[in-house]
Amino acid sequence: MRCDVVAIGTELLLGQIVDTNSSWIGEQLALTGIDSHLQIKVGDNIDRIVAAITDALHHSDAVICTGGLGPTQDDLTREAIARVMGVELQLDDDKADLIRHMFGSRGREMPNNNLLQAYRPAGSSFIAEQPGTAPGLVCELVVDGADKVIYAVPGVPWEMKEMLAGTVLNDLRRRSGETASIRSRTLLTWGQSESGLAETLAERIDELDEIGGVTIAFLASGIEGLKVRITTKAASDAAADAMLDDEEARLRRMLGDLVFGVDDASMESVVLAALAAKGLRLAVAESLTGGLIASRLVDVPGASEVFVGGVVSYDSEVKFELLGVPRGDVITCECAEAMATGVRTLLGADVGIGVTGVAGPDPVEGRKPGTVCMAVDLAGRVTSYEVSLPGRRRQVREFSCISVLNLLRTMLSSEDP
Amino acid sequence: MRCDVVAIGTELLLGQIVDTNSSWIGEQLALTGIDSHLQIKVGDNIDRIVAAITDALHHSDAVICTGGLGPTQDDLTREAIARVMGVELQLDDDKADLIRHMFGSRGREMPNNNLLQAYRPAGSSFIAEQPGTAPGLVCELVVDGADKVIYAVPGVPWEMKEMLAGTVLNDLRRRSGETASIRSRTLLTWGQSESGLAETLAERIDELDEIGGVTIAFLASGIEGLKVRITTKAASDAAADAMLDDEEARLRRMLGDLVFGVDDASMESVVLAALAAKGLRLAVAESLTGGLIASRLVDVPGASEVFVGGVVSYDSEVKFELLGVPRGDVITCECAEAMATGVRTLLGADVGIGVTGVAGPDPVEGRKPGTVCMAVDLAGRVTSYEVSLPGRRRQVREFSCISVLNLLRTMLSSEDP
Repeated sequence: MRCDVVAIGTELLLGQIVDTNSSWIGEQLALTGIDSHLQIKVGDNIDRIVAAITDALHHSDAVICTGGLGPTQDDLTREAIARVMGVELQLDDDKADLIRHMFGSRGREMPNNNLLQAYRPAGSSFIAEQPGTAPGLVCELVVDGADKVIYAVPGVPWEMKEMLAGTVLNDLRRRSGETASIRSRTLLTWGQSESGLAETLAERIDELDEIGGVTIAFLASGIEGLKVRITTKAASDAAADAMLDDEEARLRRMLGDLVFGVDDASMESVVLAALAAKGLRLAVAESLTGGLIASRLVDVPGASEVFVGGVVSYDSEVKFELLGVPRGDVITCECAEAMATGVRTLLGADVGIGVTGVAGPDPVEGRKPGTVCMAVDLAGRVTSYEVSLPGRRRQVREFSCISVLNLLRTMLSSEDP
Repeated sequence: MRCDVVAIGTELLLGQIVDTNSSWIGEQLALTGIDSHLQIKVGDNIDRIVAAITDALHHSDAVICTGGLGPTQDDLTREAIARVMGVELQLDDDKADLIRHMFGSRGREMPNNNLLQAYRPAGSSFIAEQPGTAPGLVCELVVDGADKVIYAVPGVPWEMKEMLAGTVLNDLRRRSGETASIRSRTLLTWGQSESGLAETLAERIDELDEIGGVTIAFLASGIEGLKVRITTKAASDAAADAMLDDEEARLRRMLGDLVFGVDDASMESVVLAALAAKGLRLAVAESLTGGLIASRLVDVPGASEVFVGGVVSYDSEVKFELLGVPRGDVITCECAEAMATGVRTLLGADVGIGVTGVAGPDPVEGRKPGTVCMAVDLAGRVTSYEVSLPGRRRQVREFSCISVLNLLRTMLSSEDP
């Protein structure tokens, strides 16, 4: 089963908006076991939209169109699909009533343009989910003697995603005749390189190649960590889930404390939850990261329960005067430790973090860019280490951020019985 | 003249990497006055790459391929173009020597695979710029009796951009027979909505529609501000530049202090430069922004000359105890002012910034999400205001960041004679 993607909108071609929709759709199709060989961006031009969909259907069993379902004259997807199908657009009275009602309930008169959205190509049907004002479409047709299908979903990402998850992916799977269930889970890791992880898991990956049904893939994701994705395929959802559980348990035994979370977790959310569970409150002292750690912590809902605040001691005088760091070189573990203890005491927290180093591009105190010293003061127990991080200014900062939070995480978990 | 784009790489179709290259290329083509009607993503499959390029050339005068120029077996762009041209790949001895030399100068032996990069389709030439190890290609051919051209550039964004700017765009313009020069400049603004700006400039935009040669477009860019792009077209670069200068001066008169910078500037870089010019040093006290302002300031090279550091007073106790804010409600202009003065004094800076407010999703002190109070203490002169910002948690933080820096900017510029 092959499904191509056509993203519609002149603003995509002009680079005013980056087409992230087809990337997300491509990922979902892969997880559903459906191939996607071609993804096309085309502008708001009826002839070119018709040509793009028609061409795609010659090679492919299905096409997902995203965008061009709004109420303006530039929204041509409905009309283009009708032309590809060789049918007329018909007004759907129920949908027209629904749209009128949506406007009415917000106390607004429906502009006449919005009635355009109640039209569908003859013989097509609407997608059940309709999170916004734009209805989606399922359009069956025969091309070159074979049954094919076109889906049309809005360009607004959350509307598109709801329709994909609710209708399109299930419908595609049903049409593919694929009765197997495909499930996936992502283990988030930090502390080893991609090649190091691959080496650790090499034997298991070879085994799985023999056995089948389970695959493992790696994805380096910067400040989000290094991801290990497990995908399973089985006769039922329950069986695929059981295989996921089994493989996750096996990989966790092999990777140990490298695994810090699963799926949508982040290092920040994991550390804040671990601190909350112990009733500990956190303060951070940042030099080269300049507020990045604090700003990522407060992005986690509920951070205020745990996160007291921080000091950005960019200038060395702030380290000496406010945090009580002994005067001298500041690219040292001693400095990071004094920053961690200093900010913990200053802000009355239980745990303090300190990070100092060289973001680059120039060396500092004769230390080369990427040299970073990080420390954690966990209720008086102080641990620190120095590391040499790769990359440019921004990347050094991001790796420093996840690395020091990971240090705190491992200190907290080593306390557990 | 029409130029389509083919982005090559299975990881693009799987959504592991978002294709930002063709968006950037699309923008540059538009600025060069060249149409781009189709942008395609295709995987690492020789037949499908050949088909995508061939199809594109039937409709289009030129194709830019990005990606697939590396040294591995998955890098198929060279071979695909040779097939489209109906020629063989030939080893270029000079290029082979160059690549060997690049490895030698880094003290490494060249892996044999890298020799693949020294091959080019017979009759094609290399692009002069080669910022990485992957050479780019210019490949002329005849399709349907017409002269056409294929460019191949790497998928690494900065390598791709250097080749586009250095060779590809100029070559396309020469081929298009377009003798007019097209230039553009972007004015960065903050302080008025997009519709407000459009209203202010409506009369001028109507005039320009009549006159021709100059166009104006708006682009809302979140924390980067609201951009006004001027594009001019004239017989020579000098004439187009003169029109840009003229139009910029006119718009600056109409927009006044809303304009904070041009092109690649940012609010942070502008504010830091203005402070540096006056020999003033800055400290920030952040509550709802949680370190975002500080982390954006330190992203500007040379920030350490001006930026002393900051306090993230997420917990109210930090405001009271460390910054000396009077106990009481904290979502007030008085609190923001006390934070600004407190952090200026505490860190021994000349200028202090204070921001407090409700990021959401829940109200605080009965104030609704988006309520933000911001203050600047400029050497003892304190100014503050309260604002109601739209959007969710992240957006409220970003708008707070640019808004308070803009307040400081206008205070600094109002001091100027």
